[in-house]
Amino acid sequence: MTRDLRPTDVIRLEPDSVRMLDQRKLPEREVELVCRSSAEVATAIGELAVRGAPAIGIAAAMGLALAAIKGEDLAEAEATLRRSRPTAVNLAWAITDVKRDGLRPDELVRNAQRIHTDEVARCVTMSRHAAARFPDDAVVLTHCNTGALATGGHGTALGAIRTAFDLGKVRHVYVDETRPLLQGSRLTAWELDRAGIEHTVIVDSAASATIAQKGVTNVVVGADRIAVNGDTANKVGTYGLAVICERRGVPFDVVAPTTTIDGGADTGASIPIEERPAEEVALHSPVYNPAFDVTPSDLISAIVTELGVHQNPYAPALADAVLTSASIRT
Amino acid sequence: MTRDLRPTDVIRLEPDSVRMLDQRKLPEREVELVCRSSAEVATAIGELAVRGAPAIGIAAAMGLALAAIKGEDLAEAEATLRRSRPTAVNLAWAITDVKRDGLRPDELVRNAQRIHTDEVARCVTMSRHAAARFPDDAVVLTHCNTGALATGGHGTALGAIRTAFDLGKVRHVYVDETRPLLQGSRLTAWELDRAGIEHTVIVDSAASATIAQKGVTNVVVGADRIAVNGDTANKVGTYGLAVICERRGVPFDVVAPTTTIDGGADTGASIPIEERPAEEVALHSPVYNPAFDVTPSDLISAIVTELGVHQNPYAPALADAVLTSASIRT
Repeated sequence: MTRDLRPTDVIRLEPDSVRMLDQRKLPEREVELVCRSSAEVATAIGELAVRGAPAIGIAAAMGLALAAIKGEDLAEAEATLRRSRPTAVNLAWAITDVKRDGLRPDELVRNAQRIHTDEVARCVTMSRHAAARFPDDAVVLTHCNTGALATGGHGTALGAIRTAFDLGKVRHVYVDETRPLLQGSRLTAWELDRAGIEHTVIVDSAASATIAQKGVTNVVVGADRIAVNGDTANKVGTYGLAVICERRGVPFDVVAPTTTIDGGADTGASIPIEERPAEEVALHSPVYNPAFDVTPSDLISAIVTELGVHQNPYAPALADAVLTSASIRT
Repeated sequence: MTRDLRPTDVIRLEPDSVRMLDQRKLPEREVELVCRSSAEVATAIGELAVRGAPAIGIAAAMGLALAAIKGEDLAEAEATLRRSRPTAVNLAWAITDVKRDGLRPDELVRNAQRIHTDEVARCVTMSRHAAARFPDDAVVLTHCNTGALATGGHGTALGAIRTAFDLGKVRHVYVDETRPLLQGSRLTAWELDRAGIEHTVIVDSAASATIAQKGVTNVVVGADRIAVNGDTANKVGTYGLAVICERRGVPFDVVAPTTTIDGGADTGASIPIEERPAEEVALHSPVYNPAFDVTPSDLISAIVTELGVHQNPYAPALADAVLTSASIRT
């Protein structure tokens, strides 16, 4: 694998399989996971071998195309893929979108590839919009992983950091380790290291002190599902970050493609929040392990999509964005 | 060891050693650590075999008494003990207080025992004051460990939870795991389990969602050093908790003995914050690992000591508390 992570390194559809960089093994080992059925793709999604809302959508689309190639029962394959994780709306969107030209293997394969290519293109575009909001000499803090690994290429919030770095605007990046699965210290730090961007890992609890004391100029995060009013579900801990940003007067931006907006969710109250196994957190105690939390839209300085920069009140613009985006697609 | 943790189980001075329950090994193993010199006590403090501001003070006092018993150079022993950890002001206070009747072994031993007994008594008293502030059917969230392990017996914030539980007022306790060293999931959950108090462990990042969604009625924490204006240094993450409590309108109380007040610190700006080794957080990346953060006094609903409940503005009351406490002591 080259130092630059290509979209096909993250995930690709081959004639007999969906192949992906197994994110559970990083950064210690770069292992390719080979899924030879849609059920194996669904398991890979459920067990977080591939994670990040856009990447989950891409994987599910490729999974359905693989099911068609293999002659699986497509309705069953679709149902299994749809159940693999509950929060990222990209999953449902991609499964619907991949079928738009028909259910023949060639049609599904072509659309799965297109979804992958389009998501990466959206990332590059939204990153330009988001990076334009960075000050010179930015000191950025981010949570979880929103890079190429999470999106199939370039990244959303981490894509914005990369683009801003290429523009000479990034001095330093603070990375929340992101318990319980450490997507920050395992994946984001690995991507920043490969990109040559100076960074420091902190425990999630140190974010508030870091923002207060280390001259953090802006906080950027991705999203797993965005309601029409701007309420945003993202990796657990995002809400707390937004509250501290409000207290400190630090801009708090959400960077995500329009495929992450749920036109059917008026507010964050209708977003299902996945609870994950206790064993991820502790072995000897009862555990509450929500994977996500919902940040109310009034705490978000801007939601940046490939269409541009949206600000409060979000409701009409985000609803339009879903429609515009859908009409571009169809 | 019995199910009820006695003060002498946590730490005790014997004719040849200071013996303590090694908190690095809990909850998997209950191992007694035997320190046969003041230097070994200082190492035990530095490596967190014993931690928690009051317990650090007790250990240091016992360490100096042990130095006298063993005929060590007392000035050197004192200097080593004082350097063992920088943030908890109880360390400096206890080393000064243990010497008040003289430097003979019997004088130091008697005063070290008295400091231990008095700290536990202070915990019991402050816990009554703090528990009186709990509503009936309280759902409490706490951070780090502030129980018997942290104080030599009973506890401060966790002592308040125990006292409130004995009064029938506690429905449930949420415990932040407290990265990087997991004092919450390792130590607080272990103490709550022994006490038969229902509890759930969460990752630190889930505290904001838990406070928002699980009916948390109050948040209580301990302190490592309190400035005269009420600014409070405590385990990193406390500041973020206080900010979310302000946003949600949830009372946020600090429970600590007057020995934790630094009469020489007008504000939190003069409190030294210990940075701990990177290896505690991540192996492959640069790390910023502050052990503590400072919560500004305006975010604290009450500071509860053995003298009672103090509220903003704290300045005259806390300065008086240090003096009153000192005059009671001497």
